Amino acid sequence: MADLKVINVNIGVYDKNNTIAEEIRVRNKMNRTFLANIMASPGAGKTSVLLRTIEALRNDYSIGVMEADIDATVDAEKMRSAGVRSIQVHTGGECAMNANMTKEALDEFSADDLDIIFLENVGNLVCPAEEDVGSAVNIEILSIPEGDDKPLKYPLMFEKADVVILNKCDVLPYFDFDHDTFRKYLRDRNDSCDLIQISAKTGDGTDELAAWIERAYEAWRA
Amino acid sequence: MADLKVINVNIGVYDKNNTIAEEIRVRNKMNRTFLANIMASPGAGKTSVLLRTIEALRNDYSIGVMEADIDATVDAEKMRSAGVRSIQVHTGGECAMNANMTKEALDEFSADDLDIIFLENVGNLVCPAEEDVGSAVNIEILSIPEGDDKPLKYPLMFEKADVVILNKCDVLPYFDFDHDTFRKYLRDRNDSCDLIQISAKTGDGTDELAAWIERAYEAWRA
Repeated sequence: MADLKVINVNIGVYDKNNTIAEEIRVRNKMNRTFLANIMASPGAGKTSVLLRTIEALRNDYSIGVMEADIDATVDAEKMRSAGVRSIQVHTGGECAMNANMTKEALDEFSADDLDIIFLENVGNLVCPAEEDVGSAVNIEILSIPEGDDKPLKYPLMFEKADVVILNKCDVLPYFDFDHDTFRKYLRDRNDSCDLIQISAKTGDGTDELAAWIERAYEAWRA
Repeated sequence: MADLKVINVNIGVYDKNNTIAEEIRVRNKMNRTFLANIMASPGAGKTSVLLRTIEALRNDYSIGVMEADIDATVDAEKMRSAGVRSIQVHTGGECAMNANMTKEALDEFSADDLDIIFLENVGNLVCPAEEDVGSAVNIEILSIPEGDDKPLKYPLMFEKADVVILNKCDVLPYFDFDHDTFRKYLRDRNDSCDLIQISAKTGDGTDELAAWIERAYEAWRA
């Protein structure tokens, strides 16, 4: 197996972030590449959800993953073991990717031939929501063990989401997670995003998520 | 019941952070007040762990809690319902408390008469580890559902911890969390911190955590 590619990206000039993000979107649109920004707390299951989703989509689309972390390469290794084209991006301590870092990562990934690129952002419910990375869509994963009050405490993350994926639904019986409370708090922050329940462990809900990605991908390329 | 106090704090001048942190420690030492900085991911159970710990210690110590969040007041409300003296601190979008914000919060809390103050930091495994808040100890809470690889991905948080609390141990059977793997990764980052397993839900392990706080408190006041 080829060596895993690990790149260190730079934060760049902060006030140019929105300009660079827009450039990324223009380039990706031209290349017909769909960039999805995956955001969540540490341990919400970003990598596992991605693996399930890619499994469902890989026969029809060419897919790559950019794994962003402060340190470590475990997630990119998991992707590589599953035969998914991927690179590991180290943020140099930064708590989120920004547009400049994403541009550097895309350049290194040489991924203009891919249909879909998933950017697995740093595990964090605050910083990633503050940075436009030039993605076509923002996907927020929340897991049942984290609790139903998270949209209340991390407003921007839920405001920015095009879809909220509620993961680890298999362990619902063991946690005090109230769906009605969660929905109320979520809708107070965002009344238009979609909401999909899944369990990356059992695979339940993967089809619905894969179908959502397909629809978003088709809308992007239209 | 009195109105809940909610204050908005300012980030201050970044390069003065360490000086202000040291001033906080000197003042707290003079006042014989022990400040414990509680850090964790969103949903790791900071508030629940604190409620259990305070329940175990409140007959012997006067205790207060400063709840730091981007938004919302749910945690401070929970503390108040449990009869715990508390204030809600809003960070204005900042992903962590720093020393300046902590100083402002302490001034507003007028808590010099308290034995122990818990600062429940913003839910985040990156930013809080980068800011010295002038605490006597740093307590890191990790929960079983987050996974055994977190010390690998969030190095600084685990390096800075005086004690790591492994919470939600009651749900261990439903997750792929390997204790040996976790201990190995943790010890790679920090070979001296203590490690305590608890379940804030069942109360298991609370005594050990309360005893740890008591020992740290006595060492601080010695």
